[in-house]
Amino acid sequence: MGRIGFVFSFLVSCFFGLVAPAEEGMYPVSELGRLDLASHGLEMEVADIFNTEKTCLVDGICRVNGCTGSFVSENGLIITNHHCAYRAIQNASTAERDLLKNGFSASDRSEEIRAPGYVVRITESFSDVSNQVLEIVTPEMTFVERTKAIDRRRKEIEKQAETDNPGIRAEVAEMFTGKTYVLFLYTFIKDVRLVFAPPASVGNFGGDVDNWEWPRHTGDFSFMRAYVAPDGSSADYAKENVAYQPKRFIQVAAQGVNDEDFVMLLGYPGRTARHKTASFLRYEQDVRLPYIVDLYGWQIAEMEKAGKQDRAVALKLSSRSKSLANVEKRSRGQLKGLKRANIVAKRAAEENRLQAFIAGDPERRSKYGAIQNEIARVYAQLTESSEYELNIQNLRSASRLLSIAVTIYDSAVERAKEDLEREASYMDRNFGRTIQRMKLSQKDVHVPTDKILLRGMLARLETCSAASELVPLKTALSSREETAKFVENLYASTKLTDSDYLDSCLSKSPEQLRKEDDAFLNLAVDLYPEYKRLRELGKEREGRLGQLYGDLITVKQAFLETNFVPDANGTLRLTFGHIRGYSPEDAILKTPITTLAGVVAKTTGVDPFITPQRIIDLHAEKDFGRFAHPVLNDIPVAVLYDTDTTGGNSGSPILNAKGQLVGVNFDRAFEATINDFAWNRSYSRSLGVDIRYALWITGKVYGANHLLEEMGVN
Amino acid sequence: MGRIGFVFSFLVSCFFGLVAPAEEGMYPVSELGRLDLASHGLEMEVADIFNTEKTCLVDGICRVNGCTGSFVSENGLIITNHHCAYRAIQNASTAERDLLKNGFSASDRSEEIRAPGYVVRITESFSDVSNQVLEIVTPEMTFVERTKAIDRRRKEIEKQAETDNPGIRAEVAEMFTGKTYVLFLYTFIKDVRLVFAPPASVGNFGGDVDNWEWPRHTGDFSFMRAYVAPDGSSADYAKENVAYQPKRFIQVAAQGVNDEDFVMLLGYPGRTARHKTASFLRYEQDVRLPYIVDLYGWQIAEMEKAGKQDRAVALKLSSRSKSLANVEKRSRGQLKGLKRANIVAKRAAEENRLQAFIAGDPERRSKYGAIQNEIARVYAQLTESSEYELNIQNLRSASRLLSIAVTIYDSAVERAKEDLEREASYMDRNFGRTIQRMKLSQKDVHVPTDKILLRGMLARLETCSAASELVPLKTALSSREETAKFVENLYASTKLTDSDYLDSCLSKSPEQLRKEDDAFLNLAVDLYPEYKRLRELGKEREGRLGQLYGDLITVKQAFLETNFVPDANGTLRLTFGHIRGYSPEDAILKTPITTLAGVVAKTTGVDPFITPQRIIDLHAEKDFGRFAHPVLNDIPVAVLYDTDTTGGNSGSPILNAKGQLVGVNFDRAFEATINDFAWNRSYSRSLGVDIRYALWITGKVYGANHLLEEMGVN
Repeated sequence: MGRIGFVFSFLVSCFFGLVAPAEEGMYPVSELGRLDLASHGLEMEVADIFNTEKTCLVDGICRVNGCTGSFVSENGLIITNHHCAYRAIQNASTAERDLLKNGFSASDRSEEIRAPGYVVRITESFSDVSNQVLEIVTPEMTFVERTKAIDRRRKEIEKQAETDNPGIRAEVAEMFTGKTYVLFLYTFIKDVRLVFAPPASVGNFGGDVDNWEWPRHTGDFSFMRAYVAPDGSSADYAKENVAYQPKRFIQVAAQGVNDEDFVMLLGYPGRTARHKTASFLRYEQDVRLPYIVDLYGWQIAEMEKAGKQDRAVALKLSSRSKSLANVEKRSRGQLKGLKRANIVAKRAAEENRLQAFIAGDPERRSKYGAIQNEIARVYAQLTESSEYELNIQNLRSASRLLSIAVTIYDSAVERAKEDLEREASYMDRNFGRTIQRMKLSQKDVHVPTDKILLRGMLARLETCSAASELVPLKTALSSREETAKFVENLYASTKLTDSDYLDSCLSKSPEQLRKEDDAFLNLAVDLYPEYKRLRELGKEREGRLGQLYGDLITVKQAFLETNFVPDANGTLRLTFGHIRGYSPEDAILKTPITTLAGVVAKTTGVDPFITPQRIIDLHAEKDFGRFAHPVLNDIPVAVLYDTDTTGGNSGSPILNAKGQLVGVNFDRAFEATINDFAWNRSYSRSLGVDIRYALWITGKVYGANHLLEEMGVN
Repeated sequence: MGRIGFVFSFLVSCFFGLVAPAEEGMYPVSELGRLDLASHGLEMEVADIFNTEKTCLVDGICRVNGCTGSFVSENGLIITNHHCAYRAIQNASTAERDLLKNGFSASDRSEEIRAPGYVVRITESFSDVSNQVLEIVTPEMTFVERTKAIDRRRKEIEKQAETDNPGIRAEVAEMFTGKTYVLFLYTFIKDVRLVFAPPASVGNFGGDVDNWEWPRHTGDFSFMRAYVAPDGSSADYAKENVAYQPKRFIQVAAQGVNDEDFVMLLGYPGRTARHKTASFLRYEQDVRLPYIVDLYGWQIAEMEKAGKQDRAVALKLSSRSKSLANVEKRSRGQLKGLKRANIVAKRAAEENRLQAFIAGDPERRSKYGAIQNEIARVYAQLTESSEYELNIQNLRSASRLLSIAVTIYDSAVERAKEDLEREASYMDRNFGRTIQRMKLSQKDVHVPTDKILLRGMLARLETCSAASELVPLKTALSSREETAKFVENLYASTKLTDSDYLDSCLSKSPEQLRKEDDAFLNLAVDLYPEYKRLRELGKEREGRLGQLYGDLITVKQAFLETNFVPDANGTLRLTFGHIRGYSPEDAILKTPITTLAGVVAKTTGVDPFITPQRIIDLHAEKDFGRFAHPVLNDIPVAVLYDTDTTGGNSGSPILNAKGQLVGVNFDRAFEATINDFAWNRSYSRSLGVDIRYALWITGKVYGANHLLEEMGVN
């Protein structure tokens, strides 16, 4: 497929004096020409990173579900993180054949394992559709109507684009809230397979203890492969599918990097909130983050308890528990960072300066004078109702069975509507994946844990006055015994743990589901009006904030004269910087390259600090092949750098000045969890696995030399 | 008093090839001539550090209870640690006049506060008395007899020396176990007063969290003063006493130190076990240290709970709880260090080499072949009975009232004997201080906490089969209710919390005490035979180990050809090294100077990270006077160096190459807790408060400029 024309205008108006930028910035690739990357150390043509006319580096980058990956061979071989492939490894593992524990290496393509739920997308083009989206808005609309109208218009644009470009996936992304919209077109690959994964003792070495920390000693990488139909078109998994041929693949540079080397990352960073107000940050700091830390801390502890007795249960719960632990610790880091760096106060001070600027001109004052206050009001209201709202939403997410029941009923209601009127996940183009995710989550239901979590959430709701108004839970919340009875009855009278039953429900109408008289479905039906009310309330807030933030960006543009990059939103970005240590506190320096000796030193033999004996032996023998660091005389394991990343950059290639892959990004340092709200030159550090470690593990330790050959590393 | 002649021979025989030593080594000052200190950076004459003919640096150093201090003026002003003066500050504090919290500064000498229980000693001379001590031993003696005979001979020598040198304190110290004994003579000052202490928020900044850690930000210093009778003789506290005039005082160097500067410490390191066997280390690692960590952890938690509600209770318990916390964390560090550095295995390997050397010669084999095994057998037996012995000994120390009761009864029994036959603490020369310590500990009894600790110890004994044989506790240990009843009855039927009653008991005979019918005294009487049995058992082990270790040292001398320094034993030593950072783990460097900016950054406003507002303000104003570090442009707070220290070096002066005071030693880094067992060039680091911080706090922050003047800092 040829590359579609690009429209650049959407960002131009937002870039002021973009000279000699700091390392802050997740730049849309259309803007690279404005950055003097050569002065920072780039040794290739910017036009070879991104180009509308010919193939370029960007063609070798893909999104792998919520992560990033790089094509590293002409046959669709992808390198990404172990934690990005985790769901696939877990799904293929049983207590008897424990791939998570033992690792996996396909000796040829026939052995590669299907990774259900995985999709790979490659950015093909993008164009500004802001006018098309916003022309739908009229001043008479309520905020709910505004949100719904914009949503529908975005869906129409996507549908039209997919009709015009068969086989292509279209997404309209919001770049600046309420102001700028861009249509992205993606090649969309649905047959993804697991090729190689080190044992979790390598790929997740240090586990939750080391997660979000530097120094790091985790071999967090794995290989997957993209498959398409024999005719090259995107297709669901089929035996006869063939390896996808990317337009370009990234060259692996086995010589690695050194301290102070220039590096850049391409990837799909998820969400940042750098353009959000102090009032939003205050809500995060005072309400949402502490709630998450507390809630997830409890849920993780329950899952750990359950998993301790039985490896099969541990496997079922591992993916969920790992992902909660990740968010929990990140949230703790953010809380600490917000307070330590006094970020709310700093942003409030910026807003005061903006307010003074607004007040300086009568016209500006009348148009924009109230915006910041009005935004603050939305978050104040959110804060007020937060205890109830957070608990009732997490009631649904805590119990997998309740979540499945609500999704089934919601789907029946939504699927009865015209396609464009439905919630996005129930539209024809998305419904297949929604069902697949639900089935994967059903596979991992562990009823005793599910019960404990549901009971715990009900106990939280019990102390929450707004919940007592909720008719369907009135009896359940009246006493501890009633709660226990209520919960026992739910699990005794449901068939939703049965996958055939779940399938049968998917074709039923709301009326038919109500007649099923399944306890969880009944609860879902009873709670449905409340969840619907909350969804509408969300749309109302979104509409209000969308309009306010749109205006805020406009007046900020007039005020600010520094660089101005849209918040991360899951679209393709480039960030650059250098391999560089930092000082997290007085009298401590962290240097930017760790070694295999550090792995051995950390090894205690107790999870998560177990190291396979073969690695310890090879280290003792100094059998490093060509992968030793020339000065350290050891295998470099992980590297640290000052680029600007966030979640979604997991699996991003660390590229050297020539655009060659020298590592795979997988995390940030603890102090850099705060990146989501603010970047800081002194301590915003990202980190990745050194390609030399990945290659040594793959080839020397686990003998998959055919993969090194496929990547052209001999 | 003139200096007494010195005898050097005691060490000469133990020093082999003492050339270019590592920084390891707590050298007796008599040996300094053998070290080429100039090549390491010393810029003064060794003869001016220690000299038998004229006054020297050593005359400016004193022992302050278990700590070290330096005279820093001609009027007996002593600088030592805040934690060394802690007991005095605590003793003078009430909830109303909280010197611990608010700090204390005497505006002139009349305001200086008596520090009961404190004594200062200054080393005047020493001489080898090994032959005199060991000639008493005959081959026919049992091990208990051996221990008692040596003890008695040491006491005789001390008594004779004190008779020959009126006003002087004599102590025979064991240098090499069972082999070398040295008589030390000390000037002994009994009137010590508190002059200046910063608030605990400065002097104990970071508290137990930062204790044993680097980087450090604690202003752990205070000033005391030694007083003597107007005629210059040592005297108990009296109003008319005058400031002691030391023969020499240490010059304070307000310019401080820098990275890589030479430093040396003089002081009274307490105990090391570098000459102990692998079997001893195994006992420490597997038995005693884990027990201490567990036991003290629990006791600290109980004291914290009790102190949380009431500042007066917190003050009562603070000194004890702080000291337990110190040992608990050190023990944790030691456990970690023993395991990480594989020290037991390394020492066992050394012993194997020694054993091979012994086996290589028939005479040596017959004489020394069994020693190492026999030593191992002692520790094996100790291990076997450890659960019971540790618990029964800690029963006594856990309950202050039981401890007082046992001491009273023990004293009555022992005081009936001839002076030289008594346990040392009941001899006439020591009894006064024994009583004083007991009274100070009675003052801090908090009955509810005492009860909890006693009950907890009984619960531990309950699960210990050997304890069930113990008649006095038989009923108490039969059930939980009986334990509770037993404990309640003890506290209901004792008068030992009353200080007058305690006084009255001190003059009573054992028979009279038995007639008192005080519940705690009764329990002490009942348990006495068992404690006596354990004491004899201890002497038996001591005798056995003394003989074995004496022989072991002899054969080691024949085997080893590196330096060989006696273990620390509370006598005067010098250690030297450099201001130097280290890498505690892969990719982390710790640099050796912390700053006031670090104090501010650590300040959370929550104990132990509170900082007085005045310090924060002065820091913001950069009002550093002459005390700023020229490069850092900030006040240096603490410094790190690679000298060889242990407990007892607390308060030691950090001396620069010219012998001037640039800081006050107060701790080690966590990795260096292992110093007690083994020293390591890579991570054995000690740390102290930078004199610039101490001077800035004293003068600028708290206005005690008269002290700076007294020290000659203008």
